[in-house]
Amino acid sequence: MSKTVGGTCVVPSSLLSVQRGNLEIPHPDDGKLSVATLFTSALRSDRPDGLFVTVPMSLTSVTTALGVVYSSTESIAESILTGDAVYYSRSRNGLWRKGATSGAMQRVERIRVDCDYDALEFGVVEAGPNGEKEGFCHVPEQTSCFGGVAGLADLESTLKKRMAEAPAGSYTKRLFNEPKLLRAKIMEEAGEVCDAETKADLAGEVADLVYFTLTRAVSMGVSLQDVQAVLDRRSLKVTRRKGDAKPEWVDKLGLSGEQAVGVQGAK
Amino acid sequence: MSKTVGGTCVVPSSLLSVQRGNLEIPHPDDGKLSVATLFTSALRSDRPDGLFVTVPMSLTSVTTALGVVYSSTESIAESILTGDAVYYSRSRNGLWRKGATSGAMQRVERIRVDCDYDALEFGVVEAGPNGEKEGFCHVPEQTSCFGGVAGLADLESTLKKRMAEAPAGSYTKRLFNEPKLLRAKIMEEAGEVCDAETKADLAGEVADLVYFTLTRAVSMGVSLQDVQAVLDRRSLKVTRRKGDAKPEWVDKLGLSGEQAVGVQGAK
Repeated sequence: MSKTVGGTCVVPSSLLSVQRGNLEIPHPDDGKLSVATLFTSALRSDRPDGLFVTVPMSLTSVTTALGVVYSSTESIAESILTGDAVYYSRSRNGLWRKGATSGAMQRVERIRVDCDYDALEFGVVEAGPNGEKEGFCHVPEQTSCFGGVAGLADLESTLKKRMAEAPAGSYTKRLFNEPKLLRAKIMEEAGEVCDAETKADLAGEVADLVYFTLTRAVSMGVSLQDVQAVLDRRSLKVTRRKGDAKPEWVDKLGLSGEQAVGVQGAK
Repeated sequence: MSKTVGGTCVVPSSLLSVQRGNLEIPHPDDGKLSVATLFTSALRSDRPDGLFVTVPMSLTSVTTALGVVYSSTESIAESILTGDAVYYSRSRNGLWRKGATSGAMQRVERIRVDCDYDALEFGVVEAGPNGEKEGFCHVPEQTSCFGGVAGLADLESTLKKRMAEAPAGSYTKRLFNEPKLLRAKIMEEAGEVCDAETKADLAGEVADLVYFTLTRAVSMGVSLQDVQAVLDRRSLKVTRRKGDAKPEWVDKLGLSGEQAVGVQGAK
């Protein structure tokens, strides 16, 4: 008979170990608890072979499912202890160190378990020599085993490619190389986002602003992942700094003194 | 013995059927081919029970994996023919019409097969009475069976919630209700995106601009999904319209005649 005990077990980090090798807990040498063993001991496979369905999610841009793979408790432990994605190959019956031969490695940013402890999501960042250009799928030109990407992830990937490959003198190359041209587009589209009167117009203007803003970001080596990391850090804060509008925009827009208060907030 | 034949089979839509009911092909009544049967006949389960591992991906904001579920050929056919997500419940041994009891239904936007035809990605939009607020997981306050969402999806969800719930007079409510205040922030942050000199500064300024731009979008009922649909339509076009910079920004930024050419492009 089993009995569920309510409560959360808190283990001091001084008792935890991320050393590879012996996964017995407590470790016979130093008496510490292996993080990998603690993590995998909570899992409950629903398969006869004891494996766990695993969804590798790329965190390189906006999240993208790369396919479906399998993990064993050993491959999960290796992923935790090395920081590189290691899965279990059913065809080879052994550990599959992603990218060990192809070079298309994945850095593991997080591993999440589903609500019934039998499936995993690996949040990974492609860490091959060419960054996110290294595909996950064996099919050429296919980012994910489910096919191509769309939306913001596609736009970011396209802009990175153009940054590297656009011919000199092309419009795209000029956007990357001429800050005044890019500034004109960003400011123009920002104004049009504010002016749009219908939903369809606004969606189009936001798409324009996103396009040129992301062009600026890519030109400086800033990714959507970097931007989202900022958003995530801010969302953890309970209160947001507030302030007054900058005089430039108070004057330009004819804000009254009261309207200008707090315009600096949400930063 | 089997032999692979190269080539792609093209079937005129006049021969296809999306009628529910008899999935035999050709259909005994009208001789048409069921789209559902054509689709499922290409699949090859790698499981003794004949099911397919399925990743439901929310397309409501940026793509988010909602968990891991299972499909049978029958549940896939039902999804294709009804447009609502239907999975296979292993515990109940039968079709699981998502949301049939909870109301948290999913509209199926696309179904993609992985490269070895044994796993599926269901691209869905939560279609319950409260839109994306309907969670997928049985755990309260958890959007996905893998936990919460982050980044842009989290920001959009938070803004929608604030739009509905922020108390009158709060800073957030004022942003939604005072177009001049929001315009001041969007224009100010657009300028700061252009001015940022370091990668860290730029990531922060883009995050600011995204925050206020998305506030404007949410206030008008425009979603990141709408914006990405515009981006996707444009990425299908081979050529992009080009044009000259608007006189307002040519003058303000001191663009020369040559620099202004083509500034309207990429729209």
